[in-house]
Amino acid sequence: MKLWDKGISIDKKIEQFTVGNDRDIDLHIAKYDVQASLAHAKMLQSIGILTTEELQQLEKGLEDLASQIENATFSIDNQFEDVHSKIEFELTKTYDDVGKKIHTARSRNDQVLVALQLFYKAELINIISKTKDFFETLLELAETHKKALLPGYTHLQVAMPSSFGLWFSAYAEVLIDDVHLLDAALKTVDQNPLGSAAGYGSSFPIDRQLTTQLLEFSTLKYNVVAAQMSRGKSERTIALAIGSLANTLARFAMDICLYMSQNFGFISFPDELTTGSSIMPHKKNPDVFELIRGKSNKIQALHHEMVLITNNLPSGYHRDYQLLKENMISAIMDMQDILEIFNYSIKQIEVKSIDLNDEKYQYLFTVDNINTLVENGISFREAYQKIGSDLQNGTYKPDTSKEHTHIGSIGNLCLEEIKNKFPY
Amino acid sequence: MKLWDKGISIDKKIEQFTVGNDRDIDLHIAKYDVQASLAHAKMLQSIGILTTEELQQLEKGLEDLASQIENATFSIDNQFEDVHSKIEFELTKTYDDVGKKIHTARSRNDQVLVALQLFYKAELINIISKTKDFFETLLELAETHKKALLPGYTHLQVAMPSSFGLWFSAYAEVLIDDVHLLDAALKTVDQNPLGSAAGYGSSFPIDRQLTTQLLEFSTLKYNVVAAQMSRGKSERTIALAIGSLANTLARFAMDICLYMSQNFGFISFPDELTTGSSIMPHKKNPDVFELIRGKSNKIQALHHEMVLITNNLPSGYHRDYQLLKENMISAIMDMQDILEIFNYSIKQIEVKSIDLNDEKYQYLFTVDNINTLVENGISFREAYQKIGSDLQNGTYKPDTSKEHTHIGSIGNLCLEEIKNKFPY
Amino acid sequence: MKLWDKGISIDKKIEQFTVGNDRDIDLHIAKYDVQASLAHAKMLQSIGILTTEELQQLEKGLEDLASQIENATFSIDNQFEDVHSKIEFELTKTYDDVGKKIHTARSRNDQVLVALQLFYKAELINIISKTKDFFETLLELAETHKKALLPGYTHLQVAMPSSFGLWFSAYAEVLIDDVHLLDAALKTVDQNPLGSAAGYGSSFPIDRQLTTQLLEFSTLKYNVVAAQMSRGKSERTIALAIGSLANTLARFAMDICLYMSQNFGFISFPDELTTGSSIMPHKKNPDVFELIRGKSNKIQALHHEMVLITNNLPSGYHRDYQLLKENMISAIMDMQDILEIFNYSIKQIEVKSIDLNDEKYQYLFTVDNINTLVENGISFREAYQKIGSDLQNGTYKPDTSKEHTHIGSIGNLCLEEIKNKFPY
Amino acid sequence: MKLWDKGISIDKKIEQFTVGNDRDIDLHIAKYDVQASLAHAKMLQSIGILTTEELQQLEKGLEDLASQIENATFSIDNQFEDVHSKIEFELTKTYDDVGKKIHTARSRNDQVLVALQLFYKAELINIISKTKDFFETLLELAETHKKALLPGYTHLQVAMPSSFGLWFSAYAEVLIDDVHLLDAALKTVDQNPLGSAAGYGSSFPIDRQLTTQLLEFSTLKYNVVAAQMSRGKSERTIALAIGSLANTLARFAMDICLYMSQNFGFISFPDELTTGSSIMPHKKNPDVFELIRGKSNKIQALHHEMVLITNNLPSGYHRDYQLLKENMISAIMDMQDILEIFNYSIKQIEVKSIDLNDEKYQYLFTVDNINTLVENGISFREAYQKIGSDLQNGTYKPDTSKEHTHIGSIGNLCLEEIKNKFPY
Repeated sequence: MKLWDKGISIDKKIEQFTVGNDRDIDLHIAKYDVQASLAHAKMLQSIGILTTEELQQLEKGLEDLASQIENATFSIDNQFEDVHSKIEFELTKTYDDVGKKIHTARSRNDQVLVALQLFYKAELINIISKTKDFFETLLELAETHKKALLPGYTHLQVAMPSSFGLWFSAYAEVLIDDVHLLDAALKTVDQNPLGSAAGYGSSFPIDRQLTTQLLEFSTLKYNVVAAQMSRGKSERTIALAIGSLANTLARFAMDICLYMSQNFGFISFPDELTTGSSIMPHKKNPDVFELIRGKSNKIQALHHEMVLITNNLPSGYHRDYQLLKENMISAIMDMQDILEIFNYSIKQIEVKSIDLNDEKYQYLFTVDNINTLVENGISFREAYQKIGSDLQNGTYKPDTSKEHTHIGSIGNLCLEEIKNKFPY
Repeated sequence: MKLWDKGISIDKKIEQFTVGNDRDIDLHIAKYDVQASLAHAKMLQSIGILTTEELQQLEKGLEDLASQIENATFSIDNQFEDVHSKIEFELTKTYDDVGKKIHTARSRNDQVLVALQLFYKAELINIISKTKDFFETLLELAETHKKALLPGYTHLQVAMPSSFGLWFSAYAEVLIDDVHLLDAALKTVDQNPLGSAAGYGSSFPIDRQLTTQLLEFSTLKYNVVAAQMSRGKSERTIALAIGSLANTLARFAMDICLYMSQNFGFISFPDELTTGSSIMPHKKNPDVFELIRGKSNKIQALHHEMVLITNNLPSGYHRDYQLLKENMISAIMDMQDILEIFNYSIKQIEVKSIDLNDEKYQYLFTVDNINTLVENGISFREAYQKIGSDLQNGTYKPDTSKEHTHIGSIGNLCLEEIKNKFPY
Repeated sequence: MKLWDKGISIDKKIEQFTVGNDRDIDLHIAKYDVQASLAHAKMLQSIGILTTEELQQLEKGLEDLASQIENATFSIDNQFEDVHSKIEFELTKTYDDVGKKIHTARSRNDQVLVALQLFYKAELINIISKTKDFFETLLELAETHKKALLPGYTHLQVAMPSSFGLWFSAYAEVLIDDVHLLDAALKTVDQNPLGSAAGYGSSFPIDRQLTTQLLEFSTLKYNVVAAQMSRGKSERTIALAIGSLANTLARFAMDICLYMSQNFGFISFPDELTTGSSIMPHKKNPDVFELIRGKSNKIQALHHEMVLITNNLPSGYHRDYQLLKENMISAIMDMQDILEIFNYSIKQIEVKSIDLNDEKYQYLFTVDNINTLVENGISFREAYQKIGSDLQNGTYKPDTSKEHTHIGSIGNLCLEEIKNKFPY
Repeated sequence: MKLWDKGISIDKKIEQFTVGNDRDIDLHIAKYDVQASLAHAKMLQSIGILTTEELQQLEKGLEDLASQIENATFSIDNQFEDVHSKIEFELTKTYDDVGKKIHTARSRNDQVLVALQLFYKAELINIISKTKDFFETLLELAETHKKALLPGYTHLQVAMPSSFGLWFSAYAEVLIDDVHLLDAALKTVDQNPLGSAAGYGSSFPIDRQLTTQLLEFSTLKYNVVAAQMSRGKSERTIALAIGSLANTLARFAMDICLYMSQNFGFISFPDELTTGSSIMPHKKNPDVFELIRGKSNKIQALHHEMVLITNNLPSGYHRDYQLLKENMISAIMDMQDILEIFNYSIKQIEVKSIDLNDEKYQYLFTVDNINTLVENGISFREAYQKIGSDLQNGTYKPDTSKEHTHIGSIGNLCLEEIKNKFPY
C-alpha cells in the first residue's frame, strides 16, 4: 500500500530503488510523527474539521502507537513505504473514516518535515548536553593536571613550555565556539513547519499557532515555502554544526594518538582502552581514539553530501530530499556515541611525567631566557640575537624558573572564566 | 629582510614559494595590524615595558602608517615577506630601538591572529548588515507583488498556486537562519587572541584584559593554546556561515534563471542587467544571476578547502595556516559584492502576468477542489479519488476562487512577523 | 573471540564502537577473503611452510566456506569482530593446528587489503560493463530519434536547434571520459598487495609472484609500504571515478526532470515509472529520475569522505581506515543499481513532438539565418547586426530549412565513430 | 568594446562583477587562442569561406600576436572583457573586414573551449613529466639509502623494521597510480571541441577533422553538445587527477614534517630549506614541506569547487562556467611549483642514523622473533603467545639478524621493476 497508488503496478525493482531503506530509517522519527499527528488532530478539532469524539478516537489510536514505539514493538512491514503510510494504515484499520480524516489539510511532505524538525531538535539538545559533559570533564582534567608540564610544539618542532592543564582546557574553550554553531542549528530547527502541506500551504483555515504551541516549538516558520525549504536547510545546518564539533574532537584525538606514540610517550591509557595486533604481541594501539578521529572526520564530510544532494535545485520539493535522511541520522547517532565514548575514555588518561631535561627539550626555554634579558634592559631583537648565538656556540643554558602569570598562560589557566563562557 | 633571517641566503625560488602572494593579501589586514600594534604598545606602557615617551613615539609612527593605509599610499615592497615585517621596519627606521621594542611579549603569529580576527569581525558585521538590506528588499518586493500568482512546483511539476509575494518572502525568511550562523561566526571571531604569542603565551606579565578593551573585543580567548587554535577555526566557521548564506542566494538565483527561461517566462530584467551573445542576436541572458549563482557556489566550496588545509594537524602552529588567508579573504570580498549586486538587481525585477488559464496550469487548483469537497463533508481520501477520476475522464473543472487564509499562506504572508524575526 | 584478545575484558560499549557494523559489511568481501586465503595457503605449501596434506585440508575447509558464502548460509556471529576472525575460527575448529598455520606470514591488514582489492576489481569491471550497456542504449536511442528536433538552450534561454539524437549521443560520448577514469581506478586496484603483512613485509621467504598469478592480478604492488598505502588510495580513486560517472548521470537526470516539466513537455514516461502525490491526484512525478540524480550526487560526495578520513595521516596503518569500507561499498552497490535502473527506464522514454513554430522557439533559427547571409557574402558581424535589427523591428522570419552537415552536428551524428571510441 | 554590446550602457559595477579578473587569467590561454584561431582560419580557407589572400593576412596578424605573447608584450586593456575580444579587435583594426570574417562559423564559447583544452593538455603533459622526474629522484634516493633502517609504525606505534629505501620507493610506486589518473585526464582533454559553436554546432560545412589535425589533438569530441559539456568535465577531471597526486605529495610531506620533529629526529635538511622563528632563535622549521603539504591539500579541495559550480545545471552553456578558470589555472601552476620545489628539496635530505637499540625501538623485531620460532616448528599463534609473555615478563630479546628477502621487502626493493611500471 502506497499513498500515491493509483492502481498501477509498479515494477518491483523500481520500488526498491525508490523506497530505499526508509523503513529502517523512519523508526528514528516514528515517535515524532505520532506527536505531530496528535497536535494536527487537536488543531483540526479546534477548527471544526474533527469532532471531539473523532479526536478522542485518534488520540487513543496515536497513544497506542506511541506505546508500541516506546516499547520497540512497532515495526514497518514491507507493504508500507514509510512510517507515515504505516501510521495512517493503523489508524484507518481501527477507526476507519476517522483515521482517514487526520490527513486533512496536510501532506506527507508536511509530516516528514515536522517529524524531522522535532527529531533534530531533540537530538541537538542531547548533543549540546553531552558536549557540556565533555567540556566539564576537560576542565576537571585541566585542574587536576595544571602543574604537569608538556612540551609545546610549533611546526611539530619543540617550541615553548606548555602544560597538560593548558592542553585540556584549550580544547574545552574551543568547544564553546562549536556550541555557538550548535545553537544556531537549534534555532534553525526550532521552528514549526507544519501547515506547509506540499510546500504551498492549504486552503483550509488551519491554526498554525496552535500546533506551534502544542509541539513546543519556539516559533514557526511563517512562510510555507520557507517551511518547505527547511528540507535541506536543516540538514546542511546541522551537518556543519556537528561537523565543526567533530573537527575539534578529531584534532584532539590526533594529539592523543601522537602523544601515545613511543616517540612522544606523554600519555597512556589502561589496557581496556587499547587494542593489540594479530601479529605484534607488544602493541597497545589507540584504536578507540583513531576511531573517534575517523568517525569525526566522516561526520565532517557529511555537510558536503547534504550540499551536493540539494545544490542548484530550484525551489519546491524534489524527491532527492528523501536521501538526506540516511546519513544525516546516522551521523547524529555517531556523534552521540563519540561524545559518550570520548568522555568515558579521556577520564582514564594517564599523564606521564616528562623529563624536560632531555636534550631534545632544552630549547623549550629559549624564549623565557630572551625575556629575562629584555627585562634586564636589552632590546628584544638583541636578546634574540644573543640567545641565538649562545645556541650556535653551545653556551646556551636554559632558564626553567620563569613563572607565566598572565591570563590564559600556564600559570593562570582561568578555568572558572572559561567555565562561565559556556552558553548553556 | 625577513624576521627569521639568520644571515643565511635562501634560494630565491624557495622564497617565492613560501612568501606566496602574502604581500597583496596582507593589504587587507594592514589597518588591523596597526590597530592591534597600538593596543599592544599601550599595554606595554601600562606594565612598564615602554616609557610614556616611547609610547608616544610609537603612537605617532603607527598613526602615520594608519594614514598611509587609509590613503592607499601604503605598500609592501618585495624586500618584506609580509605586512608585519614592513610595519616593524618602518617603526624601526624612524624610531630605532623604540621601534624594536614593540615586538616585546608578542610573536608574529600573535600579530597575524589578532589582525585577522579584527578583520573578520568587521567584515562579518558588514555582511550581516548587507544581508539585512537584502532581506528588507525582499520583504518590500513581497508586499508589492503579494497579489501576483505564480505556479508552485513540486518535482518541477505544476503543483499548487503560489505567489510572487510568497516566493520573495520565503527567501527573506530563510535568510534569518543564515544570520544565526553568521552570528555564531561573529561570536567565534569576537574574542581577543592577543597574548597567545607563539601559541603558548609569554613570561611577561602582559595585561590581556586591557588589550581586549582597547580593541573592543566582546571577550577574550582566555587559553593561549585555544587562542592559537583560532587559526583555522575562525576560517572554517566563517566559511560555513557565508557558505550557508551563499547556498540560499544560489538557490534564489537558480529560480531566477529558470523563471527567465522562455519556457517559464515569469520574470524579466531590463537590458542593463542582461547580456547578449556573440552569435545569437536575440539573446537576453541572465549572466548577472548566473554569476551570482556561480560565485555563491564557489563560496560554498570554500569550507572544504579550509577543512582540508587544517584537518588532522596536531595542535600548535603549522605554516600551512598561511594558506588559509588567500581564498578566505577573496570569498569575503565576493560575498560583499554578491549581496550588493543582488540587492541592486532584484529591485529591477519585472514580474510578468502569468496566464493561469493556460492548459498546463489547470492542475494547480486540484487540491483546492479536493478541499472544497472535504469541507462539504467528503473524506479526504474519497475527495482525492474523485478529483483523480475527474482528471482521467476529462471532466475536471478548476476551482480558482478559494482563499488561502492561514498564517504564511498566499493570502496571509505575515511579512511583519517575518521582519520581526530578524535578529539584528 | 578477537584476534588481539590478551585475556583482558573490554568494555562492551567500546567494543561496539570499534567493531561498528563490520560484520554486515564484511559479507561483501567474505568470498574474496576465502579466495585470497586459498592462494596464500598454496603459496605457503610451495615454500615448504605447509605440507601438501595440510594444504589439502585447508583447501577443503576453504571450499566449504566458499560454498556457504555462495549459498548465503554463511554468517558472522557477534562473537567475531570481522569476517577474517570468523574464517580463521572455522578453519581452526575443523583442522586445529593446521587452521592456525594459515595465518603464517600474513597479517589481518594483509587479508583486508587483498580481499578489498579483489572485491573492488570485480565491482569496477561490473560497473564498466553496465556503463557500456547504458552507452549502447543511448546510441540506439540517438539513432531512433535522430530526426526529432529539440530546442537547444544556453543560459536556459532558447538558443539554437538541437535534436534528441544529439542529446542522447552527447551523454553517450561523455560517458567515454568517465570510462577512462574507471579504467585508471581499475589499474589502481588490479595490483596484488598480499605480502605486505602489517605494512612492512615479512621475514618469511614468501612468493608474491605466485599469489599474483593465482589471484589473477595483472601486476603486484611491489613495495610493501606502497601496498599498505592502497588502503585509502583505492577508495579515493574509485570514489572519484564513480563520482565522475555519477556526475554525468546526475546531469542527464536533471535534463530529464526539467524536460518532463509541463513548461517544457519534451518527454514523458509510462505510469510505471512515475509516482503520484498524497494530495495532488494529477501528479506524474519523475521520482525515479530524481532519485537517480540524488543518489548520483550522493556518490559524488563520497570522495570527500574518503579524503577526510585519510588526509594528513602519516604513513603506516591507522584504525581510521576501517571506516572507509561502509560508504564505499554501499556507493558501489548504489552505482550498480543506478546504472541498471537508468538503463531500464531510459528505454521507455516517450519523445514528444515539439512545435518549433511556437512563438517562444522562433529565435532558434537566428544563427542559421545569419549564416545564410554570410554565405551570400555579408560579413558575420554585419549579418549579426542585421538579424538583430530585424528582431527589434519585428521583421524577422526564421529560416528553418538549413541543413547541418558537419561532423557531430544534428545532421551528422557520427554514432558509429562514437561507438568505436569506447575503450572496451 | 564587448562582443555582445548592443549599444546599451551597462552599469559599471555590474561589468566589473561579470568580467571579474578574466583579463589576467586569460593571459595563460592567449597563446592557445591564437593557435586555434590560426587553425580555424586555415579550415575556413579550405572550405572556401576565406580566400587564400585573406588567410595570409590573418596568418600574418595572428603570428604577430603570437610573437607579442611570446615576448610578454601582449596585454588585455580594460576596454576588452577577455582575450578573445582583444584578439578579434587587433585583427579587425589591421585587416578590417577580413579580421571580422575569422569569427565565421564559431562562437566565443568555442574559442574558450578549444583554447582551454589546448592549455590543459600542455599543462598535463608538463605535470606528468615533472612527476616522472620526482619519481626518478625517489628511486635514486631509495637506492642510495636502501640499507638505512627506519622504524615502521602502525597506529603511530613502533611496529616493525622499515627502511629509508622502502619509504622513498613506496611513494615512488604510489605515484604511478596517480599517473594513471593524470593519463585519464589527458585523454579527456586531448579531444578537439572546436566546431561546437554555441554548443549546438554550425550550419556552415566546417571541416572538424582538419582542425583536429592542425591542432594535433588525438581525436575529436564528435558530438557538439558533448564538446560543449567539456566545460566543467575537463576541469573536474583535471582537478581530481591533480588532487590525487596532491594527496600523495601531502602525505609524504606529512611524514617529512613528523620525521623532522625532535621526537623522531630521522631526517634533517640544510638551513637553506628551513626557516626560523621571530621569537625562538633555535627553530629550524620545515616550512617548505608544510607549504607543500598545505598547497597540496588546497589542490585536493579544488575538485569540490569545480563540482559545486557545475552540479545540477541542465545541459547547455551557463555563465557560471566562467568561474571555473581562475582557481583551476592557479592550481595547475601551484602543482608545477610543488613538483619542482619538492624534487629540488628532497634531494637535499639528510638521512640520520637511527639507534634501533634505543629502548622504545626494541619491539620492532618481535614479529621477526615470532617467525624464527615458527620456522623452528612452532605454530604462529603459539609463537605469538610466547613472545607476548616474554614481553610481559621482561625476558624478551630482540632478534635483529633476520633478513627480509621477498619481493618488495626491505631486503629486496625491486626498484627496477617499479621503474618499469611507470607508464611513460
